[in-house]
Amino acid sequence: MKRYQIVVAYDGTRYFGWQYQPGRPTIEEELNKALKKMTGESIAVIGASRTDSGVHACGNVAVFDSETTIPADRLLFALNSNLPEDIRIVASGKVADDFHPRHCASEKTYEYHIQMGKSPLPTRRLYSHWVPQRLDAAAMEKAGQYLVGTHDFKSFCSPRTEAETTVRTIRRLEVEKKPDTFPEMVIRVTGNGFLYNMVRIISGTLIKVGKHGWPPEYVQEVLEGKDRTLAGETAPAKGLFLKKIEFLD
Amino acid sequence: MKRYQIVVAYDGTRYFGWQYQPGRPTIEEELNKALKKMTGESIAVIGASRTDSGVHACGNVAVFDSETTIPADRLLFALNSNLPEDIRIVASGKVADDFHPRHCASEKTYEYHIQMGKSPLPTRRLYSHWVPQRLDAAAMEKAGQYLVGTHDFKSFCSPRTEAETTVRTIRRLEVEKKPDTFPEMVIRVTGNGFLYNMVRIISGTLIKVGKHGWPPEYVQEVLEGKDRTLAGETAPAKGLFLKKIEFLD
Repeated sequence: MKRYQIVVAYDGTRYFGWQYQPGRPTIEEELNKALKKMTGESIAVIGASRTDSGVHACGNVAVFDSETTIPADRLLFALNSNLPEDIRIVASGKVADDFHPRHCASEKTYEYHIQMGKSPLPTRRLYSHWVPQRLDAAAMEKAGQYLVGTHDFKSFCSPRTEAETTVRTIRRLEVEKKPDTFPEMVIRVTGNGFLYNMVRIISGTLIKVGKHGWPPEYVQEVLEGKDRTLAGETAPAKGLFLKKIEFLD
Repeated sequence: MKRYQIVVAYDGTRYFGWQYQPGRPTIEEELNKALKKMTGESIAVIGASRTDSGVHACGNVAVFDSETTIPADRLLFALNSNLPEDIRIVASGKVADDFHPRHCASEKTYEYHIQMGKSPLPTRRLYSHWVPQRLDAAAMEKAGQYLVGTHDFKSFCSPRTEAETTVRTIRRLEVEKKPDTFPEMVIRVTGNGFLYNMVRIISGTLIKVGKHGWPPEYVQEVLEGKDRTLAGETAPAKGLFLKKIEFLD
């Protein structure tokens, strides 16, 4: 029995998130089904990040144990031929037998995609949140810098969060404006872990700053208030991408 | 009765192209239905470009005549509320009563989107053509320059083309490499008109050059040969976007 790691990309549109739920399509279930077809074994993957319903990923990570004789770096091709086209393994390899993607220190990068303009571009409707206003990227960038560092993010997580502590560290937060006839904006956040809905609440808050609904400095007050009702709306799931996970040891 | 112009964006995935076909969903039919609902009049739009089945658009153009009292620049909002979410009007305005988008000289810009990597990214699967190889952008750019100018593009159009002449002018052709963990490439072509499948055959040919299947200079031979069988494959529709149309007078 060996332990393997896979990097998983998916279009979250038709899934009820990562985590198995009876009777509803989930990424976890599709991976377990594909592994069963490929190996004949009953395998349960362990995911690094249990993304929410409708959230996309370019680089979620999962591990699993198997007796397979397929070479580790070829596993992705065998798995892809057993997966629906909205889930793809983009890399595969061998890891230590005791490697657990949720117990190992890691840095995760999420991106929140926003499209701006009078009308939403149909080819981007499933992968971005549309706002009719031109957002002020500089104000959003400034607001975002109050969140960088180690803070209690109680104001920026769903009251349904079950985490023991709401203290997290954001290493980087940047707001990128992509110039085009149809302009898009990306909020990119890297941190050591994120609370339930945290990136979507940060995004909703920065969007309100970008609309000049709040000054950038207000984000500091939200952080200090430790009260979810002070922050902005939870931005829609379809704009969120889990971009990559880096393990630190 | 006044003539109006609309700029139309769509996700071509579920449509059998622009042009009306009985019993099959088309962009033209959806626009005529939405105009009927909005105005009560039986209106037939005239499109600038009859894009093929599966092709996307950010900026196709159509005109129509109507007795509507809705202000020209507000028409887009009224129309959007009557259209499916995979079609959106991005601009609307008044034009001269005799303006015809296919009889007026214009420059059209198409983009062909390619994603490269071991596995196709699921969130890009409907809007790009996947090739597992890293394509040589410099070789493709060089090959593309043989096509710029006024030429007989007989080798680069479907034998089913019904055009009177296969001479066209390409003003610009550029190959853009977008750096990312998951790299994409865009072939951007601007010209005064394109033959049936022309951009997709140009793209298929440049992709073969990018794989080092042909040297860039071979494109000159293809052009001179005036024979469709010399050029590359017709690249899949889903990678093609009609980006914009500019009318020249």
